[in-house]
This record gives sequence, structure tokens and C-alpha cells, in this order.
Amino acid sequence: MPKKPKKGKVTGPIRIIPLGGLGEIGKNMTVVEYENDMIVIDCGLGFPEEDMPGIDLVIPDISYLEANKERIRGVLLTHGHEDHIGAIPYLLRTINPPIYGTPLTLGIIRNKLEEHVLPWKPELRTVNAGDTVKLGAVTAEFIHVNHSIADACAIALHTPTGIVLHTGDFKLDTSPIDGEMMDIVRLGELGQEGVLMLLCESTNAERPGHTPSEKKVGASLENIFATHEKKRIIIATFSSNVHRVQQIIDTAAHHKRKVAITGRSMLNIVSAATELGYMKIPNGVLVDINDIKRYKPGELTIVTTGSQGEPMSALYRMAFSDHSQVALDANDLVVLSASAIPGNEKLVGRIINELSKNQVEVLHDAVVEVHVSGHACQEEIKLMLALTKPKYVMPVHGESRHLSANRELASYMGISPKNIFISEIGKILEIDQNGAKWNGTVPAGRVLVDGYGVGDVGNIVLRDRRHLAQDGLIVVVATVDTDSRLLLSGPDIVSRGFVYVREAEELMEEARAVAYDTLTDLLYNDDHVDRMQLKKCLKDDLTKFLYAKTKRKPMILPVIMNV
Amino acid sequence: MPKKPKKGKVTGPIRIIPLGGLGEIGKNMTVVEYENDMIVIDCGLGFPEEDMPGIDLVIPDISYLEANKERIRGVLLTHGHEDHIGAIPYLLRTINPPIYGTPLTLGIIRNKLEEHVLPWKPELRTVNAGDTVKLGAVTAEFIHVNHSIADACAIALHTPTGIVLHTGDFKLDTSPIDGEMMDIVRLGELGQEGVLMLLCESTNAERPGHTPSEKKVGASLENIFATHEKKRIIIATFSSNVHRVQQIIDTAAHHKRKVAITGRSMLNIVSAATELGYMKIPNGVLVDINDIKRYKPGELTIVTTGSQGEPMSALYRMAFSDHSQVALDANDLVVLSASAIPGNEKLVGRIINELSKNQVEVLHDAVVEVHVSGHACQEEIKLMLALTKPKYVMPVHGESRHLSANRELASYMGISPKNIFISEIGKILEIDQNGAKWNGTVPAGRVLVDGYGVGDVGNIVLRDRRHLAQDGLIVVVATVDTDSRLLLSGPDIVSRGFVYVREAEELMEEARAVAYDTLTDLLYNDDHVDRMQLKKCLKDDLTKFLYAKTKRKPMILPVIMNV
Repeated sequence: MPKKPKKGKVTGPIRIIPLGGLGEIGKNMTVVEYENDMIVIDCGLGFPEEDMPGIDLVIPDISYLEANKERIRGVLLTHGHEDHIGAIPYLLRTINPPIYGTPLTLGIIRNKLEEHVLPWKPELRTVNAGDTVKLGAVTAEFIHVNHSIADACAIALHTPTGIVLHTGDFKLDTSPIDGEMMDIVRLGELGQEGVLMLLCESTNAERPGHTPSEKKVGASLENIFATHEKKRIIIATFSSNVHRVQQIIDTAAHHKRKVAITGRSMLNIVSAATELGYMKIPNGVLVDINDIKRYKPGELTIVTTGSQGEPMSALYRMAFSDHSQVALDANDLVVLSASAIPGNEKLVGRIINELSKNQVEVLHDAVVEVHVSGHACQEEIKLMLALTKPKYVMPVHGESRHLSANRELASYMGISPKNIFISEIGKILEIDQNGAKWNGTVPAGRVLVDGYGVGDVGNIVLRDRRHLAQDGLIVVVATVDTDSRLLLSGPDIVSRGFVYVREAEELMEEARAVAYDTLTDLLYNDDHVDRMQLKKCLKDDLTKFLYAKTKRKPMILPVIMNV
Repeated sequence: MPKKPKKGKVTGPIRIIPLGGLGEIGKNMTVVEYENDMIVIDCGLGFPEEDMPGIDLVIPDISYLEANKERIRGVLLTHGHEDHIGAIPYLLRTINPPIYGTPLTLGIIRNKLEEHVLPWKPELRTVNAGDTVKLGAVTAEFIHVNHSIADACAIALHTPTGIVLHTGDFKLDTSPIDGEMMDIVRLGELGQEGVLMLLCESTNAERPGHTPSEKKVGASLENIFATHEKKRIIIATFSSNVHRVQQIIDTAAHHKRKVAITGRSMLNIVSAATELGYMKIPNGVLVDINDIKRYKPGELTIVTTGSQGEPMSALYRMAFSDHSQVALDANDLVVLSASAIPGNEKLVGRIINELSKNQVEVLHDAVVEVHVSGHACQEEIKLMLALTKPKYVMPVHGESRHLSANRELASYMGISPKNIFISEIGKILEIDQNGAKWNGTVPAGRVLVDGYGVGDVGNIVLRDRRHLAQDGLIVVVATVDTDSRLLLSGPDIVSRGFVYVREAEELMEEARAVAYDTLTDLLYNDDHVDRMQLKKCLKDDLTKFLYAKTKRKPMILPVIMNV
């Protein structure tokens, strides 16, 4: 580790630049610079909002990294969730910095990269909690934390000017499934050394108390299995939560049930986690999903994807009788061992409704404690602050409400309000021996991924999609000779998503008459009429006519063909 | 009341036909028939799902009522919420049966009808809890219940064959704001007389325990006012919850604050409720929203609409600095005295985020008990079953999960599973002295309202809107002479919502070339080519080309002009 700066010795400034994850959920990414050395923490993706129809994924704008690629000493990953690693394949399209992560994190990335064609071989460098890595003038230290995925770390960056500590996503679990509690001793030591800046996650900063231990879910599962001896038990959870899956398998084994696994990502992660030793499956417990007919309901447990109601997931297909191996009925119990991510409530509800309709019993987290969060509640955030005693605090990872709540906690713990910085993506906070101050911005934002396209759908395209979705479209086409000012053919009117045309023939005929009048009026009375003018007038007149008739504003698309 | 049928006397069958509200939230409507007499209970609207872009409202298909209009003895309303009365203006377009409701319910309807032009004067007939109304061979009895709006009733239909009791929406509030507890004495008397069929609402049937009293919110408000003496307090709630608004005004008056009201529906309902005596505003408390600048933050409370995050509401405009009288800052406290209706979580979150960003303090129901539900939880549903001792039970008002949960409660209370009927809209349950059985269906479904159009947007239009939203649109236009088989002009390609065209010129040029090849190939090589064929081939070839290039499937709209 670099020694503490000696009194009087002048060290360089640290710059902290979030590129994602502030004022939003997802696409977490933070740049920390010390003089010429640039370190990137996490590289996540986000999911599209409702006002982004057709978009598959959202990733951070990394043009700042591309412009400074020779300064990047490494991309450090805190853990293997999509919102922390999902943009790695896109980053690797244009730059190829070394990527550091723990074995499970890199295992998940390797799996993911198989679906992408890259211009180079990525440099994936394995680290373990407790390891340090030299990155220019900075030393990065990985520190074990608890979270809803194994192998998660906080990262301390030791710079000549001071320590920047990024918590990553964390919780304190005093009885974790893999036997390792968050390394609060090391965090406390850093606090004694002196933490200059704490970047602290904010997801649960609004929630009082402590997040319960993962073990609590085990107790609920035990209870569910004990009281449903005769039923087949189907449990849906996040595939990345290997400890949860481990607990399900252990409980099933304890009740002498076989376990079948279904869902592509569940199969992928179980095999990766077992291979790397993060999951231990007792011999003879796993059975192939194709062989489940051999077992009575009370002899079987199925672990599946689909806890968020995803329409292509295994659970969704089971619910809607579209799964090739599993058909559900009144002999089945479905356990949703997850909570709905905000925005997914309706999707999850759709599955519960369909299962209820078919007399399948359903247990979810509103009824039994079959899920616990992976994020620190207020008391754990306070503990983090008490251990690390930072000079400065920047709440990260959360919408504005979460960042605000986290600021209140820091303030409650005695951090002076002027030392708490609520930042935004692209905003530079510079810290040196004299203090911390805002110092400009870098390009930052969101890049939309749609099919093969990365960034080719922007605000104009989205606005058009929303307009089209709202009231549909009218195409009006005419062939004219603008020289001789003759209407040669049309106007024809074609509509989609506006009205059911067979039952609105009269309206469409009237619209055609409006277009005809507009065109002939202009062609016969205006010597200098051009295509632009014809199009503008068609648009205006039809919009006015249709709004008066229907109170709707379909998109009007005039096409004038010149012969 | 009709006497109980004497032993041996043959009475006619009762038919129970839900037209809305089962397997869904909203558009509640139930038909009960005794021989030739038809009674309709409630006539509500629903809100569009996410897969219904551009739709304003959803109403029940009432073609069954239209076809039997001379048999309708009355439409009986349980209370004044939109999901129970909102479709009345649409029903009144084609039929004009007498409408019975309590004073507040009809007051809200009168307000609503002012915005509609109807072919006749509606027959609105006021009833009060305790009243009975003779409707052919049936006598309807209105029974007071507690709910989140004043003047709510259950309805008992006394028929020669037995009593059908519809609970409407209800809860048991032992300390209600208007002094009247649900009339459990009368419900118990009906149970002693013998209830043949109980139609019981299911909204909270998944929730254990009791729904807290509205008074609990009053205690929270008192606490909030006491601890925020210096701040201006802005409270958003449902405008129809007159008891909630009453409590806010009372608490403000107690703390010597003035109250200003904003939001159109809030102003409407406060004035109607005050006029009808459902709300009592102490003298000198109300101030005009235009005069609020005269008061210090600690002297003022603002009651507003927008608790569901509605983008045009007063609270939304305040949050986004777009309200003409109210600008919010760190001197303000916003209280969301409501819970987000499923599907609205993100909208509500957007407001909380924007307020947090501007350092406005926010309290909502996840943090303080500033809202209670208006619906019966499990213990209250059990009480209803225990009081009314029905022979048959039909869970109503809820998605499948809620109906199932309600069935479990009835079963727990000793109703034989074969006497519990989970119905669907349009399904006829017939009950006579021999028993109850399914007996066919009537037309039922959803009718979509979009602008002035009622029912002119159906599944095809919605499918097109969703397709357009997903990947946008390509219009390809050409003018041809199919007789001489000449391409006279084009093909031109216009796109919207597909890619940002300025950055995709090459792609669009390639697409044009594909279209050109398709057209000339067919025109020059196929003697019998017609417009249909040209269009089909253009569509197929362009779809294939664009999917290979972009992995997107925009809607392809070929237009062939014939000169």
C-alpha cells in the first residue's frame, strides 16, 4: 500500500466521476482518477423505462473512457450482477482495458462473452477478496462483503492523497450461507487509517432497521417443505443468487426430494457455481427435467427462472401451459422466492393470476418470508459509516430519493453536510489536500441498445415510436406532376393503429376528400407550389380534420411522388 | 320485503351474470335476474393495461343489457368510485334505465354527466342506506358499509327464491370519521333470515388481519403536523376520500393553519361534499390558492390531487416546477396520503425522485401510516361470512389471485367447496330451489374508449400500435403502370421510429435498392403481376433484409400507386 502522504508533501488531486447509477437504478459505473491514472469501478447495464418502447438494454455512454483509453489502468468489478457487469461486452467493442474480478464474477462474464464477437481477446484477471492490485500510482484492495450473489467485494483505492472506498452493493449478514461475514474488521482498519471518501450504495437507504440474513429464507423454506409433503414444489428465484439455490437444494435433500433445474440462466449459473466450488450439490439429488415424470409430486422440487414474471422464462411458460416438461395443477405449490423489482409488479401478478386460475397454490414474499434483500438497510449503512469514518461521503447507486435518504443517514452520523456530495452522472468531484469541490463535467448519458444497434435509437426515434403507439398512423400518398401542376394519381390513404378501417370507411373516405381538396387547391391555385408545401398542408389539414372527428392525433405521413 | 317462499311453493330461478370486475381490477358490473326482472349492480370503468397504448378507458361490453333493455328495472350503485360508476355516461348513450344511488354517489355522477351529451335526461333516483326499492318482483335494500368514500352501501336483493347479497366494496371501521359503523346488525339479521348467495368483494382477500381504521391516519397526520411546525405541508390524496380530506382540514385547523385546495377533481368533490353535508369546513380555514403567498410556510397546508403520480395532476406540476401558484423547496413537506395502485409505482416514484432532487422532504405510506385501505382484509371477510351465513358464495371484484384467496376464506368458514363459485364475466350461474349450476353465457368483454371513439379500437388496431411502438415503420412507395409494366417513380422509402435516418443513410439506401430489385424483377419478368403481389413481395424482402441487418422487425407498409 502507498504510505500516507507525509506532512507538507504535495500530492495530486483525486477526481470522482460517476458515469452511471446515480439518479437511476442500474448501469452502475464510476471513474476514479488520480493524476494520470484512471480506474473504472463496475460497468453495468440498465433496463429500459416504459417510455422507451422496443429498447432491449440501456448502457452508459463511455465516450469519456474511449477518449482516455490509454489512461485506464483497469476496470474493477464488485460482483457479477447485470447492473454491474452487463455493459462489459459493449465496452469491449471499442476499448480493451484489463478487467479485474473475483472468480464467480469473471465466470459469469466468460459465459456472457460467448454470445458476442469482439475485436480482441479480453484480459480477464482473477482476484480474490483480500487481494491488492497495483494500478499506476493507485493500489486497489478487494474487501469481502455480503450480497445476494456470492463473491462480492467492496473496493478500496489507496492513492497518495488518501483512500477512496467504494462499498459496491453490500449488506451485513452475520450468518451467511458461505460462512463468511462481511470483512468489518478490515473496513474498521481502513477507518483507523483514514478514509478520505466513501462512495456508499443507497438502494435501501429509505428502509429502517437491518436486512435479514439469507438464513431466514432457509427457515421459511424448511417450514414450507414440512407443511406441503404431498405437493410438488416449484421454486422460482434469481439464478445469480447461488446461496438461495443452495438452500433450496439443501432443504429438498433434507426432505428426501429430488431436484430438477429448468431455465437457461439457472442451468448456466448452477453449472458455473458448482464448477467453481460456490455450490455443493449432494450426490444423487439432481435429476434431469426430462425425467421428472418418474417421481410423485411429494418426491420432487423444481428450481426455475421467472421470478420477475419474464414472458419468455420457464415459470411463465409453466403458468401458461407452454413448458414442454412441466404442467402445473392443484398438486403443485409455486414459491416465488424473490420480490418484484419496481416496474415488474404487473408481470409477476400476471403469473400469480394464471396459476390461481388453474388452482395452483402460490406463496410469495408478501405472504411468507421467502426472500430477503441483498442491500444494506439504514442500520447497516450507519455501521459502514461508523466503521470507515470517512471525511467525505458520496451516496451512489440509487434514484434521487435513495441518494437523499443516504445523505440524511450520513448527516445523522455526524458527517458535516458540506462534506456530503450528491453527484450526477458526468459530474466531476475533485478532492485534494485543500478540500473537495465540483470541477466541471465529462460527457455522460445513456446509450440505447435495440437489436444489433447500439446508439442508433435516440430521442427522435423514441418520440416517434411513442407517437405511433399512442394514436397510430395515417399515410397519405399522391402522385403529382408539379411542373404541369397535375394530380396524376391518388390521394390514397393507408392507416395503421388508428381505427379499425372496415368499420370506419366513411371517416377514411372523408379524410381522402380533405386530402384531395388540399392538393387540388394548392396545385391549381398556387403557381409556385412545391413538394414540401404540399406535404405540410396535407399534414396540417388532416391533423385538424381527424382531431375534430376523433379527438386523436395520429402521425400523418404525406408522401408526394413526382412523375 | 317478499315473504320467504312457503314450503312446496315453486319460485323462479335467479341468474347471476357478472359483466365486469372478475379476473380483473375495475369495470365492476353484475347482473342479477329473477324471472323477467333484471337488476344491474354498478357500472364501472377500468384503466388500460400497458399493452393498450393510446387507450383512455376500458368499459364493460353492455350488449346483453342493450338487447334486454325493457327488462332492466334499475341500475343500483354501491358507491361513487370510478370503477363502480365510471361507465354510466357510456351506458346512457344507448339505454336509459333508472339509476339508484346515495346522495354523494349521484352528486358525483351529475358532475360527470355535465361533460357528456346524452340523447335523454337520465333518471337519477336518490336512496339512502336503510331504504328499500321495489324493482318488479325483487326488492332491493341498501345497507351502510364503510369504505374509502362516504355513502357506500351493500345491496341485498330480496327475491321470491331467496336473498342475493352483494357487499360492494367494504371494510369494517369501528371508529369511522362520519360516526357510522358498517351496519353489521342488519347484515346479521339477513343471515338469520337466510342469505342464498353472497357476492363478496375480494380486493384484500390475500391480506391477513384487519384493515386499520381511517382514524389511524388522523393520528399520523397529527404527529406529522406537530413535528413540522415550520414547514409548509402539502398533502396529496384521492379526491373522493372525503373523510381523509376532512381529517386533513381538521388537523390543519387544530394547528392554526390555513388550507388551500388545488386540482380540479379535488375542488369539485370538496364543493359537492360540503354542499351535501358530507364535509364540514370550519369557518375561515379555507384560503384561495392564489392567496397563499400571504402566509408563512408554517401557517399553510395545501391539499392536492396527484397521489398516483398522474402526469397532469397538480402535484406532478408542483414537483416539476410547472404549477402556477405553488413552487416547492426545502421549506416544504409533501405527504403522499395514498398508496400506489398496482401499475402506478413508477409514476409515483418519479414524483418522489423529483422532489428529493429539489430537497423537498417527502413522507409516504412506506415510511409513516398516512394511508389505510378501503377494502376488507381476511378477518373482515370472515366476519361478513359469519354474519350472513350464505348458502352460496361467489367471490367478485378482483384478479384471479384475489378470487382464489377469497374462495379459501369461504372454505375456511365452512362453506362447502361445491357451493363456492368462481365465475367469469359473461358466465351465467343459475340458482333455484334445487341448487346452483352454470348455465351458459351471454356476450361480455371489454370495450376500449380512445378519444371520442367507443369500441372502434380493437385487437387489430392495438396489435398494430404495439408493433409500431416496438420497431417503428418503413413506408415504401412506388408509382407503376401495371398494364405496360413500367416503374414510373420511386421506390421511395420513408421511415419513422426505426433508426435515426441521418446516421443510417447507407442502410436506407440499401433498403431502397432491395425494393427496386424486387419491383423491377416482378414487373419485367412476371406477365400477370398485380398490386397485391408487388406489395407482398416488397414486404417480405424488406422484412428479411432489415432483420438480417438490424435484428429489428419494423412494420413495412408498401403503397403502390397506379397511373
